[in-house]
Amino acid sequence: MSKLTIIKPTLLLDQAKTRRNIDRMVDKANRNGVRFRPHFKTHQSAEIGNWFRQAGVTAITVSSVDMASYFAQHGWSDILIAFPVNILEIDALNQLATQINLSLLVESAEVVQFLTDNLHGSADVWLKADVGYHRTGILTSQPDRFVRLVEQIEATSNLTFKGLLTHAGHSYQARGRAALHAVYQEMVAQFKQVQAVLPQAQISIGDTPTCSVVDDFSGLDEIRPGNFVFYDVMQRIIGSCTSEQIAVAVACPVVAIHVERGEAIIYGGAVHLSKESFEDAGHKTFGDVAYLQADGWSAPVEGAYVSALSQEHGIVKLPPKVLNSLRVGDILAVLPVHSCLTVNLLRTYHTLAGEQITRPVRE
Amino acid sequence: MSKLTIIKPTLLLDQAKTRRNIDRMVDKANRNGVRFRPHFKTHQSAEIGNWFRQAGVTAITVSSVDMASYFAQHGWSDILIAFPVNILEIDALNQLATQINLSLLVESAEVVQFLTDNLHGSADVWLKADVGYHRTGILTSQPDRFVRLVEQIEATSNLTFKGLLTHAGHSYQARGRAALHAVYQEMVAQFKQVQAVLPQAQISIGDTPTCSVVDDFSGLDEIRPGNFVFYDVMQRIIGSCTSEQIAVAVACPVVAIHVERGEAIIYGGAVHLSKESFEDAGHKTFGDVAYLQADGWSAPVEGAYVSALSQEHGIVKLPPKVLNSLRVGDILAVLPVHSCLTVNLLRTYHTLAGEQITRPVRE
Repeated sequence: MSKLTIIKPTLLLDQAKTRRNIDRMVDKANRNGVRFRPHFKTHQSAEIGNWFRQAGVTAITVSSVDMASYFAQHGWSDILIAFPVNILEIDALNQLATQINLSLLVESAEVVQFLTDNLHGSADVWLKADVGYHRTGILTSQPDRFVRLVEQIEATSNLTFKGLLTHAGHSYQARGRAALHAVYQEMVAQFKQVQAVLPQAQISIGDTPTCSVVDDFSGLDEIRPGNFVFYDVMQRIIGSCTSEQIAVAVACPVVAIHVERGEAIIYGGAVHLSKESFEDAGHKTFGDVAYLQADGWSAPVEGAYVSALSQEHGIVKLPPKVLNSLRVGDILAVLPVHSCLTVNLLRTYHTLAGEQITRPVRE
Repeated sequence: MSKLTIIKPTLLLDQAKTRRNIDRMVDKANRNGVRFRPHFKTHQSAEIGNWFRQAGVTAITVSSVDMASYFAQHGWSDILIAFPVNILEIDALNQLATQINLSLLVESAEVVQFLTDNLHGSADVWLKADVGYHRTGILTSQPDRFVRLVEQIEATSNLTFKGLLTHAGHSYQARGRAALHAVYQEMVAQFKQVQAVLPQAQISIGDTPTCSVVDDFSGLDEIRPGNFVFYDVMQRIIGSCTSEQIAVAVACPVVAIHVERGEAIIYGGAVHLSKESFEDAGHKTFGDVAYLQADGWSAPVEGAYVSALSQEHGIVKLPPKVLNSLRVGDILAVLPVHSCLTVNLLRTYHTLAGEQITRPVRE
């Protein structure tokens, strides 16, 4: 990290790893002949968006109307808002509908009716399918509900039905490739149930775990993973990536050392890393821990992890050998449990080459 | 909420409740003759800081050097950074030490030596005491370690020993007034152990739960609560406040309704509320739920709570009666589990009078 002076929690970005993550998913989508519509909610940055464009990406996914407006301003003209339409934002949606090729996500007759009456310009419409995550969407065991909505959409002059969209968030409960393949196969079987009555429906899936481990996307039309651009410790534990693929880390100064407790205290807390945690090897972790190196960060230190976070403090469990050579003022790299939330908290990416990339502020 | 048009997650601030929370703590400190040095990490706003000034507050606490610099720029001249000194930020500390009455928190001989050698200007020094939270600090069962550090500090020309400082974060495990009083009494007993060998040491405590329920601060010199300014659902569950004292809420649009599951989906997720959760009545909660009203928000809806959060979505459990009358496009008010983290995510406060208060952005 010779090009960067770190004095407080600092978001580091490994551009080479990021571009490799992008290229790998682009290649996989191309090999399968499916549309790659990456989710930009993870990085939220026009500049990192350009790295996708350079890899041939032309269509993107976002999770808010604000993000859609931001990326539309930065030259993206095919944007899906993969969040149930918030009818209160109709003014911004109307602006987008005239400006870009806008895709919306819908799951109720009320919202289809609202868009029919209030959306000036046109939009493609995807129906949200619940394939087992039970966050939101229509259960695939109720194909009639899909059919009725499609009939309603096809009767409008401003909406075009595209297909079924899901986020198989329950893949985050799976561990390992075999379990992820099983989640994927079960999801595909569910889609087939609905396609039996709606053969014109395209299929779009979005979760990083299955998109990462599945190689054969037969029967799909579109994939929308987002987190894979950086990956994180959660994905490492699930089995969707290796530690080497994790492309962001937060550099955190050591401010206190408790050898007798096997712990060090870092300046790096919930306002830097987020309060997200995950079960790993029988304990709750808030992040893996690595050393800074001239060219980035090391492999995670065996037996080391962030065990607790308060607003600005992190508690790091460290093996005795590491603790005995650690000094106040040293810097540790924390690989985040959930990179989307960490990046959302830290506004500026610092690349290993010493460049800064900022993303817009939520007002 | 007649003065405010809400179309997306919006941080609402009840100024009257906030000022009452401030006044109550000011009165209690005055009655007890202890210094009130409120922690400003909760609100992070110069404008809300002025409400404390109007209530007679002159000394404050912050949790980062950046926050100290921000409030120093806004006219605060007596600031304690209640976080172990991060020696890498010595340049900013030197600037502050010449500008204001700066108080620092220390727990090791290495850091005292570093400040002796590198701090231009002078600073008051508090020693971090661990009274049972085990985040960081020196155990009160080891009074010799305090004595040695005080001798080292008193031998310097730029540092002045002030006393023992603690954050009894384990009070967050207690439930109800009796349990909080027990935590407080046990903490005071521990301080007396150290004062037996360091009679000149002042005592400073900081957690909102004990500061809220204890009325007699005999033996203390300073209290530093922060969260009490807004309180939150966590404090309600612990027993440090009532729901009526919670002074912030996030207004969240309803985007989907699942009557059969007893749930609604709101636009309002981990990037708005934070991923902090707390055990309440046998389930994990991410927030209480209330209705918007002309003059703010209602009492929490009985049986309603936020049960899960992803990046932008919240899942809200609602009783059938509420669900049956709920419509997409309605707005629910979520009382946050941890107001410090929620406020940190949403940059702009919207007062019930329709004014906006912004706080600085973390770079």
